[in-house]
Amino acid sequence: MTESPARLEAFSDGVFAIAITLLVLDIKVPRVEALEGHTLGAALFNQWPVYLAYVFSFVTILIMWVSHHAMFKYIARTDQLFLVLNGLLLMGITAVPFPTALLSEYLQYADHGADQNLAAAVYSGLFTLIAILFNLLWHYAARNNRLMGTRLDPVFARTLARRYMLGPLAYFISLVLSLVVGAWAGLAVYVLLAAFYALPTPTAARLGSGFGA
Amino acid sequence: MTESPARLEAFSDGVFAIAITLLVLDIKVPRVEALEGHTLGAALFNQWPVYLAYVFSFVTILIMWVSHHAMFKYIARTDQLFLVLNGLLLMGITAVPFPTALLSEYLQYADHGADQNLAAAVYSGLFTLIAILFNLLWHYAARNNRLMGTRLDPVFARTLARRYMLGPLAYFISLVLSLVVGAWAGLAVYVLLAAFYALPTPTAARLGSGFGA
Amino acid sequence: MTESPARLEAFSDGVFAIAITLLVLDIKVPRVEALEGHTLGAALFNQWPVYLAYVFSFVTILIMWVSHHAMFKYIARTDQLFLVLNGLLLMGITAVPFPTALLSEYLQYADHGADQNLAAAVYSGLFTLIAILFNLLWHYAARNNRLMGTRLDPVFARTLARRYMLGPLAYFISLVLSLVVGAWAGLAVYVLLAAFYALPTPTAARLGSGFGA
Amino acid sequence: MTESPARLEAFSDGVFAIAITLLVLDIKVPRVEALEGHTLGAALFNQWPVYLAYVFSFVTILIMWVSHHAMFKYIARTDQLFLVLNGLLLMGITAVPFPTALLSEYLQYADHGADQNLAAAVYSGLFTLIAILFNLLWHYAARNNRLMGTRLDPVFARTLARRYMLGPLAYFISLVLSLVVGAWAGLAVYVLLAAFYALPTPTAARLGSGFGA
Repeated sequence: MTESPARLEAFSDGVFAIAITLLVLDIKVPRVEALEGHTLGAALFNQWPVYLAYVFSFVTILIMWVSHHAMFKYIARTDQLFLVLNGLLLMGITAVPFPTALLSEYLQYADHGADQNLAAAVYSGLFTLIAILFNLLWHYAARNNRLMGTRLDPVFARTLARRYMLGPLAYFISLVLSLVVGAWAGLAVYVLLAAFYALPTPTAARLGSGFGA
Repeated sequence: MTESPARLEAFSDGVFAIAITLLVLDIKVPRVEALEGHTLGAALFNQWPVYLAYVFSFVTILIMWVSHHAMFKYIARTDQLFLVLNGLLLMGITAVPFPTALLSEYLQYADHGADQNLAAAVYSGLFTLIAILFNLLWHYAARNNRLMGTRLDPVFARTLARRYMLGPLAYFISLVLSLVVGAWAGLAVYVLLAAFYALPTPTAARLGSGFGA
Repeated sequence: MTESPARLEAFSDGVFAIAITLLVLDIKVPRVEALEGHTLGAALFNQWPVYLAYVFSFVTILIMWVSHHAMFKYIARTDQLFLVLNGLLLMGITAVPFPTALLSEYLQYADHGADQNLAAAVYSGLFTLIAILFNLLWHYAARNNRLMGTRLDPVFARTLARRYMLGPLAYFISLVLSLVVGAWAGLAVYVLLAAFYALPTPTAARLGSGFGA
Repeated sequence: MTESPARLEAFSDGVFAIAITLLVLDIKVPRVEALEGHTLGAALFNQWPVYLAYVFSFVTILIMWVSHHAMFKYIARTDQLFLVLNGLLLMGITAVPFPTALLSEYLQYADHGADQNLAAAVYSGLFTLIAILFNLLWHYAARNNRLMGTRLDPVFARTLARRYMLGPLAYFISLVLSLVVGAWAGLAVYVLLAAFYALPTPTAARLGSGFGA
């Protein structure tokens, strides 16, 4: 027996919305007694990596939510394995505040190069895992139209599958760049990805809101 | 292809509701070992700026939620750029607990005048940004009835657009007052704004719930 | 112009659900280095006031959510003042974790009698305010069937209004008892209230789920 | 009078989603100044019990959410006692982050054997309580089809009731194992449970999503 995904989708939305909102808890106020003669302006400026990590994680979770949203438009049923895969995907999403805090801590210490690179690699590692789960979820649902509402046009399905592959690939490249070249090289990938998802493309237009994982 | 905004609206609501509820985490209990001979009453009283910042942020987010709600009543479709703009707006909303904590920390130190004014300016700076995004969102959706459900009466549309301009203007004035005159002058603007939004006006009545950004 | 309360109700539900779930953040784990020769069992037992405050606040918010839920069954429209009153009610609900943490801190120090009583009084003071707002919300909506879906039977309306009065009265008695007799006398009122709401009564049965504020 | 469970279900979903997302707040970033000559990699590796507790609690809450979801498919009405029982169940769910943090703290100290075992026992104790409440909720609703939408096939009802009994039994066995054999023996039960729920079974298939509490 299969069933409608409406409640699963609402639950997933809740988890996405909470995870994206918890990110702010990592931005700490410079306490008066810790200013040590600096102005507040200097103290706020000095923690710019914290804001950067916040923006990167916010945008990445948002892109993933939109992708999840776009995917569920095609899904008409759920079954047990789909629930398990979606649950693992949500476990990845709820974990995002941790590597975000890790990244924002270590980006502030230029003299801890190796630790900084590792922090960026862990960050991209989690997103790689989430993006792989996203692809598994899609392949499981789309294979032979298993959980689809209407048969997908095969050409469109292939375009879509290729587009969904972009996520794991990009995050994995970011992971490798972080370890081999450095944290900042790895993070540059996120800027490219955000630009890619923000720009309208033909597939994006056809997808209705236009993004893969 | 465009699509219905229902799930986007529910997701946005979730983000608003969580951000507004997280504000309380910044109100700290005076610990017994930190009382140092004072009564709890005195300690609770002394942190009144924390409660004030809480109330200001709660009311401001609530007004913004009601505006968002009122705006979405006219919106019948979404597209990619609308999603991006709404995402940026939500990023602003989720960030509110940070400048709120900043403000509540520095309002407690009258002897850090410049830092206090900067804290209030950062606070109003974030709300200025959010209010600008709100206006961009509205203009994008309303221009040539791009995403509207029914054609807006042009006179009403102009009244509405003027009303929506009030937000960025007021928050920007607050920002300038905070830097030039002082934090408290900047914060006075929030009292005026809240009074304005709480009072029924003809446009408010026509809007159904009566507020712009 | 008035409008359907569905989105307002969903937003309110979100705020209730988040506030009730944030309560757990105040229950701290006894750290290994703070055990100082005690067993974990003793350390866990010694912080029993923390669990008690958690249970009291959880149950009270839950009762208020059910009342809110029951009230909205009669409400068919909203207007601006209703939104403002409901917003103030929600501000009260989101604030609950603060006096809960206050209470759980000071219940642990029997030798700070006056501070303990004040903590309990602040706790009941917030609930008194929320319960008053709840009554205002109801009176505003019910007066001349202003926002009602169907005309209320006048006898039932009077029974209901009397029932809703119980909340502010009980919380205010708790406040006075806390200050005059002591924190524990004030807290005893919560046990009576919970028992009252948990027991089925004729009005409760007619209300569908059976509770006032 | 009874009423539809839709809003109760949405509220419960919100609580589940928030509790499952708050778990991440217990995963702390190893601060630079606390590395003391270790690499970040070593510090991250050393706190593996924190990740383990996170995964265990996430999976367990997820299984419970799916069970709750599956149960509500049969429920067509609610009444007051049902609301009270469901409220107690939710109180258990929102409490999960506390014993999770307790477990992750004490799993890191092999030399605190007795405290570690107690932490694991408290962890399983909470889940035992939740699972008992889950069974009470089901029995109350299903007894004489009190709140059921359609009469349950008696054979299926018995299969289901037996399946739901698995939860309290397994968690209680885990509690006893933790105290008698040790924390790790108790935790092994969670691996078995997760495997059981992830595997499709005939009852699972018939349940639509396939799990008991």
